[in-house]
Amino acid sequence: MGRITSRSPVTRITLGDGGAAVRRRADTLAVEEPLEIRLAGEPLTVTMRTPGHDIELAAGFLVSEGVISAGGHFRSAIHCGGPGTGAVGITSTENTYNVLDVTLAPGVESPSTDIARNFYTTSSCGVCGTASIEAIEKQSQYDVGADDVVVDAALVAGLPDALRAGQAVFDKTGGLHAAALFDAVSGDLLVLREDVGRHNAVDKVVGWAVLEDRLPLTGTVLQVSGRASFELVQKAVMAGIPILSAVSAPSSLAVELATASGLTLAGFVRGPSMNLYSRPDRVREPSLQV
Amino acid sequence: MGRITSRSPVTRITLGDGGAAVRRRADTLAVEEPLEIRLAGEPLTVTMRTPGHDIELAAGFLVSEGVISAGGHFRSAIHCGGPGTGAVGITSTENTYNVLDVTLAPGVESPSTDIARNFYTTSSCGVCGTASIEAIEKQSQYDVGADDVVVDAALVAGLPDALRAGQAVFDKTGGLHAAALFDAVSGDLLVLREDVGRHNAVDKVVGWAVLEDRLPLTGTVLQVSGRASFELVQKAVMAGIPILSAVSAPSSLAVELATASGLTLAGFVRGPSMNLYSRPDRVREPSLQV
Repeated sequence: MGRITSRSPVTRITLGDGGAAVRRRADTLAVEEPLEIRLAGEPLTVTMRTPGHDIELAAGFLVSEGVISAGGHFRSAIHCGGPGTGAVGITSTENTYNVLDVTLAPGVESPSTDIARNFYTTSSCGVCGTASIEAIEKQSQYDVGADDVVVDAALVAGLPDALRAGQAVFDKTGGLHAAALFDAVSGDLLVLREDVGRHNAVDKVVGWAVLEDRLPLTGTVLQVSGRASFELVQKAVMAGIPILSAVSAPSSLAVELATASGLTLAGFVRGPSMNLYSRPDRVREPSLQV
Repeated sequence: MGRITSRSPVTRITLGDGGAAVRRRADTLAVEEPLEIRLAGEPLTVTMRTPGHDIELAAGFLVSEGVISAGGHFRSAIHCGGPGTGAVGITSTENTYNVLDVTLAPGVESPSTDIARNFYTTSSCGVCGTASIEAIEKQSQYDVGADDVVVDAALVAGLPDALRAGQAVFDKTGGLHAAALFDAVSGDLLVLREDVGRHNAVDKVVGWAVLEDRLPLTGTVLQVSGRASFELVQKAVMAGIPILSAVSAPSSLAVELATASGLTLAGFVRGPSMNLYSRPDRVREPSLQV
């Protein structure tokens, strides 16, 4: 956890009417380093991430890619170079290496070499000229559309502040995205993760959940600090999360996938207002007093 | 260009003391769709992007990956399904397909199948436990450290507003990143591109430049709307851009690479202030009036 931030000298210039003030000082930066995720020794993917919760990141990535869906599917993970013992009975390390080798449980199908090879390309239109959402949609084993949870609009409106309050590192660096999972009824914060990459922050949250064997995440709201892309909606659907709330705008494809999957997508959740792009029936607003 | 934005129905809830106002209206979204880039028919990568300037996106991606560095290296590109003729003498289309097949000029080495296979993994630490910047750094043929351009601090301070003013689509959707290239001396805007992905916005800018045969981009400043990641610094260095200015925070690895490459990295460029994380000597501030 010591590598989440680092210090760097910075020259700060502030222009004024009479000239410029120039100061030299130390600044705190959000750490960004590559993580190579391997499956049984074979390279699977590399992501630029903020160190910490690497095992959750790998587990969440595997959920998003449809490889695992329960804690028992994930047998162990070691950082190459210095194995130790970490949380939830999984072999882990306290060291700072950037290669994580995951071992799946017996019987869990590993992606074939060919799938690994095309880990990015398989998520696209395989047929030339076919650029449809069906072609890039991963099949989730959970039907988030069937989740009958209802959430108060006031609870959703409060989530960005709750997320922000939990962002310890952002305060120091201004440089981290965050994702947090909340109970849709009580509003309780279940888990919050920060990362330089917003996809990684969500993978860490989902990874925490799968390692705790909490999938599908029925009755929860995933709050993210930025915008809602197609991939974030996809990650929510793969984990069985029925409601995704973003501080900023969704993309067209995010709305399409949310609509097709029956996920409630909230965007521009700021102050007392929010936009609901799909399944607004899950958000209960107080009756208007006339 | 017709697919940069789309319309979607939205339920807008605004909470008030006496209850909630609920309105149903149409909202404008930034379009996000997959683009598969092929080289001579072979799938190379897939990116989620905003349609438009796809050829520039592909060309810029190839610069970032070290495959091409001059307009003459890029022979042609066609969207599968309906070839036509586009700008800069390159075969293009006005259609809306999401697969772009690129043909390199004779003699330009295509990435081998093995490189294509590991397009992501090769950019990481190949040796277990080796997580150094050297291992993930791509070799640029340009020495941005040798660029002796000097820019006025006041010019840099004005770039975020100039970028914002040029962001036509952001005004409608709030959902697009932007990148723009400015002349460091005159402050003239050379090119501005928007995309749901900030890496794509930079690739489009660099792709425009390589197709115009303007590489290396000596004497320019690249202004980006968000934060400065390692990959954005890398893209600037690969294109020979000496100064990168970001509205928000840089990551630790972005600062490391900027320092190692001799690129001037400005962050938190807001109002009259900015932070210079590397090579501050390129930014000239007005003398303090005492």
